[in-house]
Amino acid sequence: MALGEVIFGQNPVKEAMLQNKRDEFYRLWIQEGDGGSYSSDEKMIARAKELGCTISYATKHDLNMLTESRPHQGVALDCTPLEMDSIESLLEENGSGDDAETRRDREHPLWLALDEIIDPQNFGAILRTAHFLNINGVVVCAKNSAPLSPVVSKASSGAMESIKVYQTNAMHKFLAKCVDDGFNVVGLANQSGAENVSDLSLNQPTVLVVGNEGSGLRTNVRRACSRIAKIEGGSDKNGAGANKTTSVESLNVSVATAIALFQLTNTNAVKT
Amino acid sequence: MALGEVIFGQNPVKEAMLQNKRDEFYRLWIQEGDGGSYSSDEKMIARAKELGCTISYATKHDLNMLTESRPHQGVALDCTPLEMDSIESLLEENGSGDDAETRRDREHPLWLALDEIIDPQNFGAILRTAHFLNINGVVVCAKNSAPLSPVVSKASSGAMESIKVYQTNAMHKFLAKCVDDGFNVVGLANQSGAENVSDLSLNQPTVLVVGNEGSGLRTNVRRACSRIAKIEGGSDKNGAGANKTTSVESLNVSVATAIALFQLTNTNAVKT
Repeated sequence: MALGEVIFGQNPVKEAMLQNKRDEFYRLWIQEGDGGSYSSDEKMIARAKELGCTISYATKHDLNMLTESRPHQGVALDCTPLEMDSIESLLEENGSGDDAETRRDREHPLWLALDEIIDPQNFGAILRTAHFLNINGVVVCAKNSAPLSPVVSKASSGAMESIKVYQTNAMHKFLAKCVDDGFNVVGLANQSGAENVSDLSLNQPTVLVVGNEGSGLRTNVRRACSRIAKIEGGSDKNGAGANKTTSVESLNVSVATAIALFQLTNTNAVKT
Repeated sequence: MALGEVIFGQNPVKEAMLQNKRDEFYRLWIQEGDGGSYSSDEKMIARAKELGCTISYATKHDLNMLTESRPHQGVALDCTPLEMDSIESLLEENGSGDDAETRRDREHPLWLALDEIIDPQNFGAILRTAHFLNINGVVVCAKNSAPLSPVVSKASSGAMESIKVYQTNAMHKFLAKCVDDGFNVVGLANQSGAENVSDLSLNQPTVLVVGNEGSGLRTNVRRACSRIAKIEGGSDKNGAGANKTTSVESLNVSVATAIALFQLTNTNAVKT
């Protein structure tokens, strides 16, 4: 039924058409009847027509079928999938382009590297935060990473449609190049001796590196980092804090990433 | 088939039995065969026997049926549901008890109040972060809030089994009492004139207040707060930043809560 892939949800569909980063937009489905009447439908339909999209009205059941019963909020869009461009050096990217200019409103660029994030919900949540905090872009591993799928777009609340996401075939080499290029490459890992995330600041071009949900940063990726930072849990003066007696000893990766990115983007004073 | 409710997943089941906050533990199901052989099974079974639990081995299919095809990771536990105690003043709670003592390792207590968080994934994610950062506890609205369900426990990675969660019938009255009791009650809301979250610090007893996923803090709850803080998105000197042209202008509520809690628990310098 679909020519490309079917993205769904109000924000993903709106953003996809607004940002216009996909090659083709084939068809916009709008839910007919009470449940599908959103105030923004008219604007959305006008934009779809501009893009040469066919407009179809569908029942809730049809939309459920199209989206495999995901939370479509009454809209779905058939369009070409988003592909990731490859990148070898951040200098290529930072140096040119209107968009790069727009985002370089901080003194130093901030990039995020994701080392094998495989859960689409986590990937989407991270993209949403990265977009909100207006970082320069995201680089992921070409292998063993969640692709730019409709589920990720929904989990990102549509941020996936606008934020720049590149891929690299060898994350550790890419990061080594970043270090050579003058970037501060900060790995996020809960290891002893790591500095506290709350001591980080964006006082030079920076790449934050975050590892897989289960296994964290791979050894060669960790070694390619200039520094390692960790998020401190509850303070525990007497060694008998609640954290010590339970097996819940970590943060969700999208939460950890958000804390570190916020720290980097919102530090007023220049530390270290 | 179940006498109580069925919680599922390695961490929720382990934590529920470890923390022993539920009245009865009826039956532990372990998946038989390859897929269900976890290294921690023996310890888990020993603990279940201590608690007077029946041990049953089940097929993956049976576990799927028991858990409505949720990610059970080979274990499920039939036990009484967790109930929330009501609370009217945080002074009652802080003043006594061994557990309160253990958590009072910071100079000032930090509480989280959730005003109508309804999504169980968000609620669970928030509890996981709150537990990791070792805050004193959480207070939710008795009405229009996600209950302490098995889905929340899984989303919290089992943190729901140990962190204290209270309920109140009238959030605005509860918060007004907190202010009277000397707490700094900080509402999180993206409104103009709000102070920046990165300027917050835990320099007095504090309650962070977070609102519903869609509608934020209700008016009477917002009015009960002593201060309002917001999370700043990307800086934007020239007024043409990417955030301005898109509809993705917010953070997920669990991410926003994590950023604010981390700020409060990890500020070294005492600000204003």
